[in-house]
Parts: sequence; C-alpha cells; structure tokens
Amino acid sequence: MDKNLLVLAGTGEVSRRYAEGVAESLGLEIYNVENKVFPDGESYIRIPELPDNNILYIQNLDPPQDKRLWEALLALDKLRSQGYNVILVTPYLAYSRQDKEFLKGEAVSVALLLRLLRSLGAEEFYTIEIHKMDSLRHFAGRAISLDPYPYMAGVLADKLPHPSDVLVLSPDLGAIDRARRFADAFGSEFDYIVKRRDRVTGEVYMEPKEIPARGRSIIIVDDIISTGGTMAKAARMLLEQGATDVYAVAAHGLLVGGAVDKLRNSGVKRIFVGDTLPPKEGVDQVELYPVVAREFEWVNQHGAS
Amino acid sequence: MDKNLLVLAGTGEVSRRYAEGVAESLGLEIYNVENKVFPDGESYIRIPELPDNNILYIQNLDPPQDKRLWEALLALDKLRSQGYNVILVTPYLAYSRQDKEFLKGEAVSVALLLRLLRSLGAEEFYTIEIHKMDSLRHFAGRAISLDPYPYMAGVLADKLPHPSDVLVLSPDLGAIDRARRFADAFGSEFDYIVKRRDRVTGEVYMEPKEIPARGRSIIIVDDIISTGGTMAKAARMLLEQGATDVYAVAAHGLLVGGAVDKLRNSGVKRIFVGDTLPPKEGVDQVELYPVVAREFEWVNQHGAS
Repeated sequence: MDKNLLVLAGTGEVSRRYAEGVAESLGLEIYNVENKVFPDGESYIRIPELPDNNILYIQNLDPPQDKRLWEALLALDKLRSQGYNVILVTPYLAYSRQDKEFLKGEAVSVALLLRLLRSLGAEEFYTIEIHKMDSLRHFAGRAISLDPYPYMAGVLADKLPHPSDVLVLSPDLGAIDRARRFADAFGSEFDYIVKRRDRVTGEVYMEPKEIPARGRSIIIVDDIISTGGTMAKAARMLLEQGATDVYAVAAHGLLVGGAVDKLRNSGVKRIFVGDTLPPKEGVDQVELYPVVAREFEWVNQHGAS
Repeated sequence: MDKNLLVLAGTGEVSRRYAEGVAESLGLEIYNVENKVFPDGESYIRIPELPDNNILYIQNLDPPQDKRLWEALLALDKLRSQGYNVILVTPYLAYSRQDKEFLKGEAVSVALLLRLLRSLGAEEFYTIEIHKMDSLRHFAGRAISLDPYPYMAGVLADKLPHPSDVLVLSPDLGAIDRARRFADAFGSEFDYIVKRRDRVTGEVYMEPKEIPARGRSIIIVDDIISTGGTMAKAARMLLEQGATDVYAVAAHGLLVGGAVDKLRNSGVKRIFVGDTLPPKEGVDQVELYPVVAREFEWVNQHGAS
C-alpha cells in the first residue's frame, strides 16, 4: 500500500464521528458509504466513486451490532470487487467477549466475525482495546488492538485526584495490564482486586490484593462496562474499606440494563468511558479518535495528498 | 448424504413453526438451536449434540433480518466445524430484491448472502418463491425455489369465488409465471397488468393486457407484498373498470408501512399470504410447511428413522 489514503466513513453515528476526527487530524479526504434502511428493515449500501485505491474504512460495530456487521460485510465485499485496498478500523468490536467455546457447541462469535472481515477484503484491522488480545489471531493479517489508556490518563488528569493519592485497580488479575498501562501514564500505583471468602460468615469480599484502599482515591480500569454489576460491587466494598472515592474508567461504555444508576448507587463518583459507543446521560466520554489517527501519522510524515 | 435426516430449528418463531411442521409430517426428530440475546443485543448460538450427521436446518430470515442472518452464519459455521452435513431451508429469504447493481457501487445483497451461506457450510439451499430465480446462481450448490402457488390455490379454493368467474393477474409481465402457476392449479384464466398512459390527460392507467376486468373476480398474485403500493393502485383501477371484487395473494407478506390499511382502503376484499413472516391482523395466512415437507418425502419413502 502506498502512502495515499482516503477515509471512508461507514454507517452509524460513531463511525462518522471517528472518520471525521481521523480525516481532519491527518488532513485526509473523507467520503461516506451511502446507506439507507428500507421500510421492512433491510439495509442498503452503496460505495461512492473514490479517487484513490487505498481506503481507511471506519466502520464501528455498536448496537444494532448485527446490522452494522452486515453493512460492513456488504461494503467490504463491494470495495474489494472494485479493486480497492482496505484498512478496516472498528473502534468498538462487537462480540469480542464470545471468544471461547465455554460449553461444547457454542459459536465463537468473534472468531467468525474476524474471519469474515478478513475474507471479504479487509487487509488490515484496527480496533480499540479488544477484550482478549488472543482473539486477533482469527484475523489472518495485520490486526492491532490500540491502547487507549495512556491517552485517557492524559485527558483525565485534571478531572481526577492527584496521582499520588490514587490507586488504580483492575477488576481481576487477568486484566491487570490495563490497570498498569493507565497507572503508568497517570503516575499512580496499581493493583488488582481479589475475591476473598470470610471463613466465619462465608461472605465474599472484594479488595485490593496488596495495597489497602483506605484513604485512597480508587480508579477501577476495565475494557468494557456492560451491565456494571462487578464494578458496582467492587466500588461498594472499596468504599466500605475506607476508600476516599471511586472512579470507573473503561475504553467502551455499553452501560446497558440500568448500569449507570447501578454504578451511581454503589457510590461511583464519576464514570469515564471512550466514545466508541453512543453517549449516555451521567457518563463522561473521552474522544478517542486521536488514538486511531496517531497510528496513521506516517501518511502525513511521508507527504501524502 | 444418506437417507437419515433430523430437523434442526433455527432462531425466531417462524423457523420453529416450519421445523415443527416439517418434522411432524415427515416423522423426523427435531432439535433446537439454543439461542439467547444478551442485554447489549448480542446473539448467542449453541448447537446441541445431534445424534445424526445429516441435518435439515430450518432458519428463516424474517425481520430482524440482519440478526437472523448473523445467527444463521454462526450456526452453519459451527455445524460444519462439528462435521455435520447441512441442508438449509430458509422459507423467507431476506434481501432477495437487492439482486442487481442498479446504480454503480451498490451492494448486491442477495449475492453476498447466498455466497456466505454456501461458503459457511450449507450444502443445499431451499427457499419459498425467491424474488428472482436467477439469484440462486450465487449459491454454488443445489439451490431450489419451491413453488407455493399450486398448493395455495388448493387451500384457498373454498375461500375464493368460483374459478370460472376468476381472472388471475400478475402485477407485471416479468412476474407472469407466478400468476400462471396459480391460475393453472386454480382452473382460471390469467393475464398480466399493463400501464397505459391516456393520450389526452396524460394519466396512467393499469389494466389487464388482454382480458377485461369487468364482471370478473380478480386475484392479483405476487411474490412479496411489502408496502402494498402497486397492488393497492391496481386494485382501485380494476374496481373502477368494473371488476366484481379483488383479492391479493402472495407467498410472502411483509406488509409494512400501513400496507394492510392501504390495501383495504383500495377495495381489496381479502389478503392471503404464506406464513413465512409473522402474522398481521386483517391478513389470512396459509401454512406453507407442506410445500417444504413434500420436497423431503424421500426420507420416509426410503425408510429413515
């Protein structure tokens, strides 16, 4: 792929927002996938005439995920049939948590999804903070999960307590790298939450493994907040253990099923998420298109357009 | 494929209804694709353990089409990975009207859809009355469009006027084969509707090409009634031209955007459609699972189970 790129905005509001942000910050031309929905619910996709062969196609998979996915497959297939080279950017990758056959016979949705995106013509794939890094192997080509946490730590510096008062926590050991990446950029200590069972009462406690919560501002860092159940429970216990306040930070804020109320009621002071999904009331979004744009700065540096 | 088959019901109410009808009339065992939808809208698919390798998988693509399609792809991919041989039955094939690049750059949805169903593991494909027969070439394997009209003509015999009083009409010449198939089984004459422009007023008229509507009961036969616009207009004009009454018959009744009211207001006496889509008030459905079951009668004849 040579150094000329143009940005093609896919369907849905988030796709367009990212496409505009990336195109503007890199000085690239932007085009839109033409799209409508017929009265019966079928999607229509048309690729406009594009003046360059190398396309940065930004198609998000926020709900309705299955419609967005089908629109992505239609657009990729058409782009390929017209001879374009396509880099696909999907800020929020739907189905990323269905990454394993937990029970025999279960469809591993993220595997099929990434295989289809590749086989229908995406030559490279970029997403923001995939749930499991290992899932990227299903895309048989260059596949990158962009790290949003250092950037978010910078943007949130003046909205959070002083780093020396902060303890950054991962909800579990498996995801501790996310807390580490945020904490390193923010300048705080980090730890992960463990579940302990009280030997007498049998009750389950959640608390930091090494560093006590008492007197600290806690920032819980996760990839996705979905229904918010685990994070709400952790927040309540950390406050009981003397934490000064608790903040929630995530790359992706699905926040379904009354999650925002649940988090507020559990004492979470503020909720900060990326803007990879539509905004929710009571939640602060951090624009993450710069995390995508940075990845393609070579376009400008090598003198495109 | 040997002579043992079992029926696997896909997702959605229509899939299950057809699977039950087919399984019962052929004396086959029936299993269900396990399915749920997570709070964020993602679909979950699990294939149960199946005691035979040859599967008649019935998955309809009624709205929400994109969700049903994604569930079909997940199930097919899983079935194939588990070594099953799959015959796919899709009574209503979504996207069948997007069968051509009408404008440059348009996605030909039905082409990609049939290619994917095939490449993910469907070895044979059956649907009821596809919009364009030619679309089946996109499925690189045995692909059959089942003709429901002779069966519907039989079922509707006692709900329609006497065949000798009836004129069966196709809404246009291109679709006349549907009217012919219905009329031949029903025992009536058939014709097609032409549009004529009045040389003086410039107004457009719709009327039968050869046989006058006056004094006849008209049955307009089409494949799909979507918004009902063309059929409503034709009904109004045929009644103005002296038709006794007008009936609407179609394999598939999408009937969106107030179509039922539109047809009633234009004077259509009764609306008969197949049951390939969920029922609508004011519309009579004809159960079409026998049209599917008939195609697999060899299973019983050769002594399966």
